[in-house]
Amino acid sequence: MLGVERKSLVISEEERKVTAYHEAGHAVIAMRVPGLDPLHKVTIVPRGRALGLTASLPEEDRHNYTRDWLLGQLKMLFGGRVAEEMVFGDEKITTGAGNDIERATSIARRMVTQFGMSPVVGPIAVGEREQEIFLGRELSQRREISERTAQLVDSEIKRIVDEAFAAARTVLEDNTDLLETLAEALLERETLDADEIKCLARGEALPPLRSAEPVEALPEATDAEEAKPAASRPAQDTGGGEPSPALA
Amino acid sequence: MLGVERKSLVISEEERKVTAYHEAGHAVIAMRVPGLDPLHKVTIVPRGRALGLTASLPEEDRHNYTRDWLLGQLKMLFGGRVAEEMVFGDEKITTGAGNDIERATSIARRMVTQFGMSPVVGPIAVGEREQEIFLGRELSQRREISERTAQLVDSEIKRIVDEAFAAARTVLEDNTDLLETLAEALLERETLDADEIKCLARGEALPPLRSAEPVEALPEATDAEEAKPAASRPAQDTGGGEPSPALA
Amino acid sequence: MLGVERKSLVISEEERKVTAYHEAGHAVIAMRVPGLDPLHKVTIVPRGRALGLTASLPEEDRHNYTRDWLLGQLKMLFGGRVAEEMVFGDEKITTGAGNDIERATSIARRMVTQFGMSPVVGPIAVGEREQEIFLGRELSQRREISERTAQLVDSEIKRIVDEAFAAARTVLEDNTDLLETLAEALLERETLDADEIKCLARGEALPPLRSAEPVEALPEATDAEEAKPAASRPAQDTGGGEPSPALA
Amino acid sequence: MLGVERKSLVISEEERKVTAYHEAGHAVIAMRVPGLDPLHKVTIVPRGRALGLTASLPEEDRHNYTRDWLLGQLKMLFGGRVAEEMVFGDEKITTGAGNDIERATSIARRMVTQFGMSPVVGPIAVGEREQEIFLGRELSQRREISERTAQLVDSEIKRIVDEAFAAARTVLEDNTDLLETLAEALLERETLDADEIKCLARGEALPPLRSAEPVEALPEATDAEEAKPAASRPAQDTGGGEPSPALA
Amino acid sequence: MLGVERKSLVISEEERKVTAYHEAGHAVIAMRVPGLDPLHKVTIVPRGRALGLTASLPEEDRHNYTRDWLLGQLKMLFGGRVAEEMVFGDEKITTGAGNDIERATSIARRMVTQFGMSPVVGPIAVGEREQEIFLGRELSQRREISERTAQLVDSEIKRIVDEAFAAARTVLEDNTDLLETLAEALLERETLDADEIKCLARGEALPPLRSAEPVEALPEATDAEEAKPAASRPAQDTGGGEPSPALA
Amino acid sequence: MLGVERKSLVISEEERKVTAYHEAGHAVIAMRVPGLDPLHKVTIVPRGRALGLTASLPEEDRHNYTRDWLLGQLKMLFGGRVAEEMVFGDEKITTGAGNDIERATSIARRMVTQFGMSPVVGPIAVGEREQEIFLGRELSQRREISERTAQLVDSEIKRIVDEAFAAARTVLEDNTDLLETLAEALLERETLDADEIKCLARGEALPPLRSAEPVEALPEATDAEEAKPAASRPAQDTGGGEPSPALA
Repeated sequence: MLGVERKSLVISEEERKVTAYHEAGHAVIAMRVPGLDPLHKVTIVPRGRALGLTASLPEEDRHNYTRDWLLGQLKMLFGGRVAEEMVFGDEKITTGAGNDIERATSIARRMVTQFGMSPVVGPIAVGEREQEIFLGRELSQRREISERTAQLVDSEIKRIVDEAFAAARTVLEDNTDLLETLAEALLERETLDADEIKCLARGEALPPLRSAEPVEALPEATDAEEAKPAASRPAQDTGGGEPSPALA
Repeated sequence: MLGVERKSLVISEEERKVTAYHEAGHAVIAMRVPGLDPLHKVTIVPRGRALGLTASLPEEDRHNYTRDWLLGQLKMLFGGRVAEEMVFGDEKITTGAGNDIERATSIARRMVTQFGMSPVVGPIAVGEREQEIFLGRELSQRREISERTAQLVDSEIKRIVDEAFAAARTVLEDNTDLLETLAEALLERETLDADEIKCLARGEALPPLRSAEPVEALPEATDAEEAKPAASRPAQDTGGGEPSPALA
Repeated sequence: MLGVERKSLVISEEERKVTAYHEAGHAVIAMRVPGLDPLHKVTIVPRGRALGLTASLPEEDRHNYTRDWLLGQLKMLFGGRVAEEMVFGDEKITTGAGNDIERATSIARRMVTQFGMSPVVGPIAVGEREQEIFLGRELSQRREISERTAQLVDSEIKRIVDEAFAAARTVLEDNTDLLETLAEALLERETLDADEIKCLARGEALPPLRSAEPVEALPEATDAEEAKPAASRPAQDTGGGEPSPALA
Repeated sequence: MLGVERKSLVISEEERKVTAYHEAGHAVIAMRVPGLDPLHKVTIVPRGRALGLTASLPEEDRHNYTRDWLLGQLKMLFGGRVAEEMVFGDEKITTGAGNDIERATSIARRMVTQFGMSPVVGPIAVGEREQEIFLGRELSQRREISERTAQLVDSEIKRIVDEAFAAARTVLEDNTDLLETLAEALLERETLDADEIKCLARGEALPPLRSAEPVEALPEATDAEEAKPAASRPAQDTGGGEPSPALA
Repeated sequence: MLGVERKSLVISEEERKVTAYHEAGHAVIAMRVPGLDPLHKVTIVPRGRALGLTASLPEEDRHNYTRDWLLGQLKMLFGGRVAEEMVFGDEKITTGAGNDIERATSIARRMVTQFGMSPVVGPIAVGEREQEIFLGRELSQRREISERTAQLVDSEIKRIVDEAFAAARTVLEDNTDLLETLAEALLERETLDADEIKCLARGEALPPLRSAEPVEALPEATDAEEAKPAASRPAQDTGGGEPSPALA
Repeated sequence: MLGVERKSLVISEEERKVTAYHEAGHAVIAMRVPGLDPLHKVTIVPRGRALGLTASLPEEDRHNYTRDWLLGQLKMLFGGRVAEEMVFGDEKITTGAGNDIERATSIARRMVTQFGMSPVVGPIAVGEREQEIFLGRELSQRREISERTAQLVDSEIKRIVDEAFAAARTVLEDNTDLLETLAEALLERETLDADEIKCLARGEALPPLRSAEPVEALPEATDAEEAKPAASRPAQDTGGGEPSPALA
């Protein structure tokens, strides 16, 4: 009821640290899982409701997606939560992964129900897509799915998601040094570009900052709009995130 | 059909007493469970449809929430009902906890279905959130959940809620003296501020009231609007309460 | 199609008698179950679609309700049907209890699904209330309840209702004399006020009517509007009765 | 697409005969089951879409209905179909009983779900009635019923309906002479009034018709509008019949 | 996107042949199953979306329908598909029977759910008909049907349909000569009237055509509009067919 | 938010290769499964959202479809995905088959639920079609299907789809040379017309291109609009594809 002035976003030191490891988790997967798009930028400068952002940029236009690439996306999406869990412990995992979880579930569901990528469900469209446009038809169409089929779909989605989550954990456990290095660099510099990330991934030290103007991160952030935001980290699960460009 | 003049709210002595123990229950949890936000005020001065209010105030801005903190919220929400049960007996528990129960259920549901915080359900979004905006899509989307998944979600919500309720009971059983002290102070002074609560929690006596003007509680209550109302106690379950600021 | 002039309500002698015992059944429970609000009036003067009315009046404002009080309401609501069954036999029970049954079910459902008063279901909100306002969200929300949970809720409602019905029967069986006395007094005088009811409950005879003007019942009936109609008896189940003030 | 002139209703001799036995079936039940309202008229003069009509007229206003009376209604409604089956054989039963079946099911459902007249379901409202007015609330409300409860309701409805059907058969088998007599009189005179029916029921012959004007049946039919149409017989199941006045 | 001129309907020789046997199948049932309405015309002249038509004409007005007659309709509707299967083999059955199947299912469903013609389901209305007019009520009403009842209804519909299909096959297998004769006559003359059909059914040769103007079939086809189209054969399942006049 | 200029579609060499094998897969089935319509054109020139197109052209108008032909369509639709799997491996299958899968599922569903082509389900309409026009009726109608029937339908659809998929694989495994030849020719020439395809199918070499103007493919592509697009390959699953002309 009271008019509340929105203060500029103030992030506590603890949240800044969690965000750095969360984004570093996404980034390590992006670099270590073969076939994923190269990283464009990683940042913990908050934008809108997101506390951080990991952006990749495909090397060429892509119109269809392979199963491999989709599984890689799942792993990358789960990299953030897995990093939180590994570094801060299970009791400290945050709601910040809500959006990643939602997007990963959506990809897994489409693999199973639209793309025929579940061997158990087979090359069947569960809930035919063109009918989703018309409310009436959609309703009736959904009725046609039996509980048994719904269970099959649910268990296949769960299997795909669980396997991707476990794979993400394996990748991060094999790359704890890189995770640590990236997170520390993010806490220090707030934003890392493609070259800096590659440099750190090679185990080299970053060249010193040309000037002490971390504000420079902002114009760079603008460029990032055109990059592919592989995994953003909302300050809170919002439901308003744009759908993944990969499968929109 | 008859025009009924709304009288100012008259609270019976018995309801006043139940309310004092209910709010004291919330407050004891807030003080004794580590990691929760510090209490700002506890009051049994009725406001709107609420017979009482326990308000906490986070020490710094928070954008994401840890599992720990969410579980703490559940315990605090259940503190009121547990106190009623302990002090007045199971047959005297009231409908006043309806709003607390609703909010606790909502938090537990989101932990399970959005935040991947149930190990059994896993990092899956059950009912993807962005689709909730559009009636049509939401309907179709909900259809996709099998009865088996719905049961899994229900039983995980129940497990989380039951564990938090039991934990709240343990905390209050370990702090019956403080519960008693706070309730009595509330019955005497109607409103307790942060310093007074801390004083009582240390086992010290409250300094005497500067003057006999309990009306002074009202301007303080106004300040409290900006504080975080951790657990309000509606005169009756209304369904119109604002969503918990923690997860809105 | 034909314009039918509504005749003033003509009640057969048989229906008058059934109504008298039905209302007397409500009234006996109100007097013999501890903790219920004191009776204000019992009448078999038809008003609107109701053939009779039993009204109680709380001694002080009440904002929350204890489990005890709610269970008492259930017993009082069932008192009418139980009296019909005891006096006229199972084959003669009438549709007149339809509204009582509906209100009792609604109270029992809310005890289970909103107020955490079923130990089996626990402190969980089944169907979170604030979402009932919006059609879309409500629909999706209801989907989340599994069949198993729905069965649990149904069986708890049935248990609560059955126990209250049995308890009402026990109370009436222990008070057949009072039931008889009240019903006979109602058939003779049509309306009994608080003092007359207490007098009969003490086993004393009613003082003779001051005058033979039973029409005086009407202004009294107007006062009763402000009293709490604990259990009205519609001429027929209408579905249009106002919700119980106790839990509106 | 072609404009078709509606011819006046032409009934084949065979359909006239089936209708006579169907209405006679209703009428025999009305006379032989104790407690039902006295017959006012039976006719096989078609009106609107109904090929025949059996009308009873309550002796006094009735506001509530006993279980006995409702069961009697069920038997009367089934009297038509039972007569068809007995006289013409199972393979010759017609769609003409569709409306009777629908009304009987509706009464049985309300006995079970609103009036607490099923001992197995108990004094519970299944699908609370007042919510049926609003689409949104109704939807959510229906969700609350578990499959187990729905099965219980279905099996109780089936039990009540089957028992009433069997009882109707017993009554007609015990009164085949009266059934025959009434059907033949209907085929001869088309309409029978209360006195004529009573006369036939006593085993007496009808007095000769005053004149050979069967057209006189028409003004009588008009009077019958105000009588209670206990069981009309549509030419075909229409779905547009007015609800039974008994339970509207 | 391109404007496509609709050419006049060109039927391949193969489709013409399939259609002739399909219509002949309907016609043989109509002649050989007792109690069905006499055939008025059979044609393979396409009209609208129908490739052929078998029309019968009731000898007198009919207002109600016996179980016998309804079962006969089912057999006649299945006659087309059965003929296809017998003559061309199971792999060559066509989508052209889609409309027949739909109408047969609808009749069977109404026998079970509205007309009390299934001994297992009994004289019960499953989904009370008058409520189908209002969206809201219908929705709630459907909810009341338990899965067990829905299964019972489904299995009874399937039993009735399967029995009628088998009976149609038996009839056609006993009348392969007539089937052959009618199909050949249709391929030669395109349209057969009642007399020609009877002539062929007696095993006699058709009188020679008066002239070689098969175009004369067209004015006859217009007359057929008023006849009852017992079983039309759409070029393709359209969903736009008029409901069966028998049960509309 | 940023205005993005749509660049002309740039296809990577890898996607071009996948598309060539995908379309070649469709084409091989079209040529090797008896009874399918002759191929008109195969192309990997992108149009709209489709990366490629395989078009066949029926030799004469077809109004109904045989079971054989429908099964052939399923095999042809699956030819693309099967080719991807055989040539690039299971991990490289793409989302590009989403539209094929959707159309195949739709055909299989209609075979089972409308055309009586599943021996297990039988000649029954599951979800009667004419009711799909009206939202209200459709909803109620869908309610009538029991879970058991829904499971039967689902498992029959799955069986049909799985068998067609396996058959498509057998055909392609028996024709790997032709698959290879067609794919290579597509990569070289982008579009193959009916004569060129036949030439390659005979194992002959294509005549040299008259000129080096591959742009000529475009006007040909326009002609293809009138051909039947048997299986298009969207750049991405769009849901906006036109329904299969075969069963629209």
